[in-house]
Order: sequence, then C-alpha cells, then structure tokens
Amino acid sequence: MNTSASAPKHVLGIDWGTSNRRAYLIDPSGECRARHTDDQGMLAARPHFAQSIDHLLAAMTLPLDTPVIASGMVGSAQGWHEVPYLDISVPLHELPGRLLRAAPNRFIVPGYCQRGAEVDVMRGEETQLLGALALGRDDGWVVLPGTHSKWVLLRAGAIQQIRTYMTGELFATLGAHGTLAPLLGGPEDADAFTAGIDAARLRAPLSNALFRVRARVVSGAMPAAHARSFLSGLLIGTEFVAAQDMSSSVASICSPALQQHYAVAAAQFGITLESLDPDRVYCAALARFFD
Amino acid sequence: MNTSASAPKHVLGIDWGTSNRRAYLIDPSGECRARHTDDQGMLAARPHFAQSIDHLLAAMTLPLDTPVIASGMVGSAQGWHEVPYLDISVPLHELPGRLLRAAPNRFIVPGYCQRGAEVDVMRGEETQLLGALALGRDDGWVVLPGTHSKWVLLRAGAIQQIRTYMTGELFATLGAHGTLAPLLGGPEDADAFTAGIDAARLRAPLSNALFRVRARVVSGAMPAAHARSFLSGLLIGTEFVAAQDMSSSVASICSPALQQHYAVAAAQFGITLESLDPDRVYCAALARFFD
Repeated sequence: MNTSASAPKHVLGIDWGTSNRRAYLIDPSGECRARHTDDQGMLAARPHFAQSIDHLLAAMTLPLDTPVIASGMVGSAQGWHEVPYLDISVPLHELPGRLLRAAPNRFIVPGYCQRGAEVDVMRGEETQLLGALALGRDDGWVVLPGTHSKWVLLRAGAIQQIRTYMTGELFATLGAHGTLAPLLGGPEDADAFTAGIDAARLRAPLSNALFRVRARVVSGAMPAAHARSFLSGLLIGTEFVAAQDMSSSVASICSPALQQHYAVAAAQFGITLESLDPDRVYCAALARFFD
Repeated sequence: MNTSASAPKHVLGIDWGTSNRRAYLIDPSGECRARHTDDQGMLAARPHFAQSIDHLLAAMTLPLDTPVIASGMVGSAQGWHEVPYLDISVPLHELPGRLLRAAPNRFIVPGYCQRGAEVDVMRGEETQLLGALALGRDDGWVVLPGTHSKWVLLRAGAIQQIRTYMTGELFATLGAHGTLAPLLGGPEDADAFTAGIDAARLRAPLSNALFRVRARVVSGAMPAAHARSFLSGLLIGTEFVAAQDMSSSVASICSPALQQHYAVAAAQFGITLESLDPDRVYCAALARFFD
C-alpha cells in the first residue's frame, strides 16, 4: 500500500467482524494513538460500508482521507468486497502487498485458506498473526480463542496449519437451545471447569461427551449448577487434547477473560502459554502495512 | 407385575417420549392387536398423566382398567414419577420385577445408568433392549438411532456399555441456529453423505470438524447444497468410527428412514447391520412384562 502522496499520514486499522468492529489509529512512527469500538459489525454496516467508514472517521474526529485498512468478515462474501483467500503457502510478510483496494484510501486484507482434506479458513486472524510475527513470534503454535477458536502453526513466518474449533459458538448455541440449555445457567466454578478439561482427555467424540454432561446431572454425578463450567472446560480441553501431541508451548492472543480460561487449561496439560496483548499485536500488524 | 386378578387381560404398552408417545396393545398370547401414536408426549401430558392415559384408553376403545406399562421420559424427573435408574449390573430380564407402580394398573419401567467416568443413561431404550433379547439378540452391539443415538453393548442379556451420541439433536440444533444454519437447507445427497462419513474417519474433534463444514463451503471445496447431507454423514460416521474398533456386526432398532442412513454408513465401514423392526421389538418386550 502506498499511502504517502505527500507527507506520511496516520492509518486507521479496522478489525471488522460479523457483529462488532474495533478501530486503531496508528501514527507514522507505528504508535497507536486512538482506539474505537462499536457494534457496527459487517451485519449492521452492510451494504453501506464506505459510508460506515466515513462515520467512523468522523466519530474519531479524523480526516476523511485517512487511509483505512480493514480485516475480518468485511472481506467475506457477505461483506463489502469478497477478497479471495490466499493459500497458506503465501508467507504472512507478503500480506501488505496483497491488499484489495475497495475504494480510494480503503483497503481490505485477504484471509487465508488451507486446502485438502483438512480444509480450513481464516479472515482477520491473519492480521493478528502478522502482528505476532512483528513482535518476534514467527514459529510454533498460536491460539486465537473466541467464537471460532483458531490454532495456527507458524514456521518461519508462514502458516503451516490452521485448526478452527467452534468452541465459543457451540458453548453459546448449546446454552440457548436443546436439552443441555436448561442446565447451563450456573455460575463459573473452577473445579467444574477442570473436571470438564479432564473429561476432554477421554477423547470421546463430542456428540457423546456432550450427552454425558446431561447424564452426569440426571444421574446425580454432578450438580446442575456445575454443568456450564464443565461444558466450558470440555470444549476448551478438547482444543488442548489435540494440541498436547504437538507442542509444549503456545502463544495466545485474546481478551483477559478468555486468557484466564486458556491459562488454566494450558497449565493442566503442562503447556506453557505466553499471552500476547491483542491490541498490541494488532497495532504491530498495522505498522507493517504502513510504508 | 401381577395383572391377573381373574382372567388374563390385554396390556397396553406406552413408549412415552418427550414430545410423542406410541401405544401398543398386546393380547394374552403376546400378539400386538392395536397401535396408536399421538403428540401427547411428556411435555404435553404433564402434570395430568393419569388422565392422559385414560384418554388414550378411551381413544383406543379399551376398558379403563387395562393394565398399562409405560417406558421412557414419563419416568424422568420431569415426568409422572421419577423412577430411579437401575445400575447396568442388573440384567435386562429382571426389568419385569422392577416396575414402579404409579397408580392401580399403571406401571413405569425404570431406565438404566452407567456410572463412572463414562457416565451415561437411558430411559425407554431398556424396553427395546428387553425386546431384542426376547427376539434372541442378547449379545453384541445394538444401535438405537435418533435424537440421542444409543450404542449399547450386550453380554449374555446384560448391558455392558452405553454410549449416547447427540447426533439427531446436534443435526437439528445446528440446522436452526448459528453459522452453519444458513448452509443446511439443501436436499439429501448420497455422495455428500458418504463424503461426510469419510470426513468422520479423520477423527478430528467435532468442534473442529463442524467448522470445516463451513470452511469447505466458503472456500469453494463443497457446494452449499451438499452441507446438510455432509453434516449428517459426519455425525453418523462419528458413531461408526468409534464402533469400528469394537465389532463387525451391529443390530439396529429404528425407523426405516434412519435405518437407510445407518445401513449406508455400516456398509462403508464394513460392518454388518441387522435391522430389527422397532414395533416388533417393543411388542416382544411387552410380552415379557405379561405374566
């Protein structure tokens, strides 16, 4: 991206998800100068993405010609412009040369696709990974927990493997619908969470393990109040059971609340979890786009 | 159960589930003389179970003093009377001596509980299993597909193992809620179904495999119209992947539609599937209660 017609400008990065978006203003030295979060995610902003960006700039009292780099679902088929996925053979450092120009001074970062039997995709996380790279993390496993929790194996700054788990989505969906839902109103319970992680070690198929959450309660083996944390531990533990065969060290990029859960799970598996601040990572990525 | 104050009477068996119930009238020789199905499942009938049975008898033009044996969710905590689970160490042939008398001439069959780390439960299927026993199937794996698909290992007429999979419930819930739902409107497709079964062989955690259904579609590796059958194959295949380590022969008890899906999956795994007619099985069980 060439943003320097005359003097270098600030750049606004938007992490534009399905329901929410987060914006970061980077100055020419790469420092983050302002942040803004709102609920104008892809669903709320479409089909007026250009206008929505102008409103965002106005809300942040920024000039309308501020260059904007957006990542995430904004680049999906339901977004502003569908940006074709890059193949994971393309190293992350090539991302700045692969932006799609959606309008003057408006750019969208492409996501990645892993093809073959273990097909997987990401949109948005590639920008976080570029930031992790910029902070010196270019090798080993990185986990980006969330609605669709992503485990990504990096080798010399390239994506070797993507494994996405519908952890957050299953937790929310099963909490709202179906036979488990009435059981999932309990408070957080640390012991139930670790019991759920232990249950994941049995490696039973989740369609079986999920029923057994209910079976524990109706058989009296577990109080209903523990079901929610147990399920959380089961779903997060499932990610680590797969990970433990692969690595003794993982970097995480997520909110402090999720970080706490993943740290407990990592400790239970003897895995070292290094936490990277998501804002810092994002801004480090933005600085890489800035030239 | 002693139903013979004077002459032997007919007996009405009710397979009383959460949403529906099926009733079978058995004559003193053990022959099924009438059937009745309605939507007066546990949720609709409570709290007036006794009255609901009288209405059912009236609808079938049967005397109100006809002995009734009910199995299924009617015996749960949300049902008529909570009947404590039997431990799986109790052989199935002891079921007739373990009925709970809820009212004069009204009996409920207890379910079974498998305790320990792999806790599991059943209510209703134990009656089908007693019927399978009566038809000579007292050894090996029996699968009872459905909302909560049950795989049960029998040894000399006793339950050795219960494994319940939330196959039907996950299929329905994911079809109605969440990011997969918009993809799951397609027609049945035989090739997509077998592709889903093949995907199950990868033994990836379901929280991962479910996301990859979406990844296949958004990456262009699979048309959206195939997602529904692929998911069905993935969920049913997951049951068979676990089963293939254990047995080369399984008996199934289910509707013809489900039977067809399970037969395709079994063939793909080289497992012989022997289909038992659910009505015949249920009536054979009722005859065992009749003395």
